[in-house]
Amino acid sequence: MRNARLPPLETNGAPVPSDPDFAARVSGSFARQGAMSHLGARLTKVAPGAVEIRLPYRSEVAQQHGFFHGGVVATIGDSAAGYAGYSLMPADASVLTVEYKINLVAPAKGQELVARGRVVKPGRTLTVTVAEIFAVEQGRETLCAVMQQTLICLPGRADGPPSGQVIGESGNP
Amino acid sequence: MRNARLPPLETNGAPVPSDPDFAARVSGSFARQGAMSHLGARLTKVAPGAVEIRLPYRSEVAQQHGFFHGGVVATIGDSAAGYAGYSLMPADASVLTVEYKINLVAPAKGQELVARGRVVKPGRTLTVTVAEIFAVEQGRETLCAVMQQTLICLPGRADGPPSGQVIGESGNP
Amino acid sequence: MRNARLPPLETNGAPVPSDPDFAARVSGSFARQGAMSHLGARLTKVAPGAVEIRLPYRSEVAQQHGFFHGGVVATIGDSAAGYAGYSLMPADASVLTVEYKINLVAPAKGQELVARGRVVKPGRTLTVTVAEIFAVEQGRETLCAVMQQTLICLPGRADGPPSGQVIGESGNP
Amino acid sequence: MRNARLPPLETNGAPVPSDPDFAARVSGSFARQGAMSHLGARLTKVAPGAVEIRLPYRSEVAQQHGFFHGGVVATIGDSAAGYAGYSLMPADASVLTVEYKINLVAPAKGQELVARGRVVKPGRTLTVTVAEIFAVEQGRETLCAVMQQTLICLPGRADGPPSGQVIGESGNP
Repeated sequence: MRNARLPPLETNGAPVPSDPDFAARVSGSFARQGAMSHLGARLTKVAPGAVEIRLPYRSEVAQQHGFFHGGVVATIGDSAAGYAGYSLMPADASVLTVEYKINLVAPAKGQELVARGRVVKPGRTLTVTVAEIFAVEQGRETLCAVMQQTLICLPGRADGPPSGQVIGESGNP
Repeated sequence: MRNARLPPLETNGAPVPSDPDFAARVSGSFARQGAMSHLGARLTKVAPGAVEIRLPYRSEVAQQHGFFHGGVVATIGDSAAGYAGYSLMPADASVLTVEYKINLVAPAKGQELVARGRVVKPGRTLTVTVAEIFAVEQGRETLCAVMQQTLICLPGRADGPPSGQVIGESGNP
Repeated sequence: MRNARLPPLETNGAPVPSDPDFAARVSGSFARQGAMSHLGARLTKVAPGAVEIRLPYRSEVAQQHGFFHGGVVATIGDSAAGYAGYSLMPADASVLTVEYKINLVAPAKGQELVARGRVVKPGRTLTVTVAEIFAVEQGRETLCAVMQQTLICLPGRADGPPSGQVIGESGNP
Repeated sequence: MRNARLPPLETNGAPVPSDPDFAARVSGSFARQGAMSHLGARLTKVAPGAVEIRLPYRSEVAQQHGFFHGGVVATIGDSAAGYAGYSLMPADASVLTVEYKINLVAPAKGQELVARGRVVKPGRTLTVTVAEIFAVEQGRETLCAVMQQTLICLPGRADGPPSGQVIGESGNP
C-alpha cells in the first residue's frame, strides 16, 4: 500500500503498471472522449496511478458569476481520478466510475482548472482513487474541490470504439 | 422527520415552507442559472422540499456512445436536490452545495433525463437531501444514478444578481 | 428499477430474490455476527431487498451524554443496508461493504435505534443500497442518520464459518 | 490551501492554529470521550490540522474472524479526522461530524489500527478533512480504509461536560 501516501504525480515508489504502454492507452482513451474535448480539457500528465487534467476558462464552462461551474469541476475530477485508476489496469480492460463523493470547498475562480487524480488502492476488480481540483488564478493554485472515487475494472473490454465503455459512462455490471 | 419517508413530490404531510412564495423563488433562481439553460434543462415540478428537473437528449449533453454524459447526470441531480433544499429556506437566503455522493448505477440511455430531488432533513444551517436520476426511454424510466447531498443556507444573501450565490457554485463559508 | 421507489420493507412489487430461503440465510449470517450480538442488536424484519435492525439503549453503546454513539449508528446502518443487499444475492454468495457515505442529521437520543436498509439497485457484482437510522424516544421515531452504500457480491463463498466473509468485514477483491 | 498537499502530521508549512493550546484542548476532549477509552484507543500525535490515533487489537473490537470490525475502523477514522479539524478551531468552539464517506479497501488484520486524520480545507463554519486507517501487522502498515469528512464548528460551545457536544455525537444545527 506504499502508494497510499504518495504525493500526486510522484513516480518514485509508485506501482508498476501491468501495461507498459499505459500512457499511450490513457492518452488514446482521453482523445476519444468527446466530453473532454468538448469542454476544452487537456491531459497534461500521466504517471503510473496518477493523472493531471487542465481546463482553460471559457464561457461554455462558466456559471453566471464567471466561475467554473460545479458540474465541470466534478467532471474533470471524475476523469482525472478515473484515468489514474485506468493507468494501472490491464491493456485489454475498460473502466467505469462506480461512485464518487465530492466536497466543493471554494469557488472555482480563475483562468484554469487543474485536476490531479491518484490511486489510493488498486485492485483486480475495484480501484479506489482521490482527486484534488484547483483553480489557477495569476499562477496561484487554490483548492476548490476534493473527491474520493470507486472504479470498476471490466477485463476483456478494451476501451475503444465502437464497443468500449469509458470513464464518464456508468453502469452496474 | 415526517418528510424522511415521503415519496418524491408528494405534498401531503410535507414540511411547510417558511417562504410562501417558494415556488416563484425557485423558478426565478433556476431561470437565472446559465448552466441549466445552457444544457437545455427545464424545471418541471416544485413542491415544498421536492423538485423535478428534466433534460431532453441532445448531442451537447452526450458522450461518444450516445448516452447522457456522467457529468451531466451529476449536474442535474445536484440542481434538483439543491433546489429541493432551497424551497424550504427563508426568502432572503442563498444556498451552496457543500458536498454530494453519487452512485452511477446504469448507463443513462434514453430521450430524456429526469432528476427528482427531495429534502431528507431540513436545518437552519445545513440541509440534507437525496436525488434519483432516471433515463427515460420510450416513456419507461430506468434509474441511472442516486445521490446524497449536503447544502448550506446563507441567510441574508438573496439569490439574485449581481451579488447572489447559487446552486452549482460552491464555497466554504 | 421499480424497487428504486419502494418505501422500506414494503414487499408489493419488490424484487424476487434468487434464493427462496433468503430470510433464513440472512438470519443465519446475522446470528454468526459477533459484533451485532455484542452490541445487542436484533434482526427484526427481513423482506426481499429490505431489512430492519433494532438496538436497545445500554451504556455500552452510548457516548458520554447518554446518546447512542455515532460509530454505533453507522455500524447498524451498514449492517441493515448490507443485509438488504445480501437478501437478493445467490445462496452461495458472500457480501462485502465496498464503501458508504453517512450524514448524521440529529443526536441519536432515545431508548432504541432502528435501522432500515433497502436495495436501490441490485446487480450481479455491485449492489447499491440506502439506509435510514432512527432514534426511538417514547415510541416516536426521529431520523438521526441517512446512508448510501455500495456492496460487492462474492459468488461461491457462502457466508459461514470458518471461510466466509461477512458484512462488517471489508476487502478489495 | 498549502495544507491540502501536506503529508500527514508534517508541521512544516502547516496552518497556524488560532488556539495556541490546541494540543491540550484536543487531548482533553479525547480523554473525556468515553467511546475512545472504551475501545482502548490512544491519541498518539497532535499537530496543527493533523492527528493520529492508535488502537491495539483485543477481542472487544474484533469481528468473528479476528479482524478489527468495520465499525471500529470507521469510528477511529471519524475521530482522527474530527480531532484534526478541531485542532484548528477556536478555543471556545465545539465540533460535530456532519457526514463522512469511507472506502473499506482491505481486511483490517493486525495487532493495531492506526488512523491518521488531516485537514484538507479549514473554514469558519465547515472544515473538510481526510483520514487514512492502517492495520499494523508485524510492524508493517497496510491501508485498510480511506475517509473524506465534513465537520461543523459550533463557536461559543466549549467542548466540556456538561454542556459540550463532541465528535462522535452529531446534529444538524
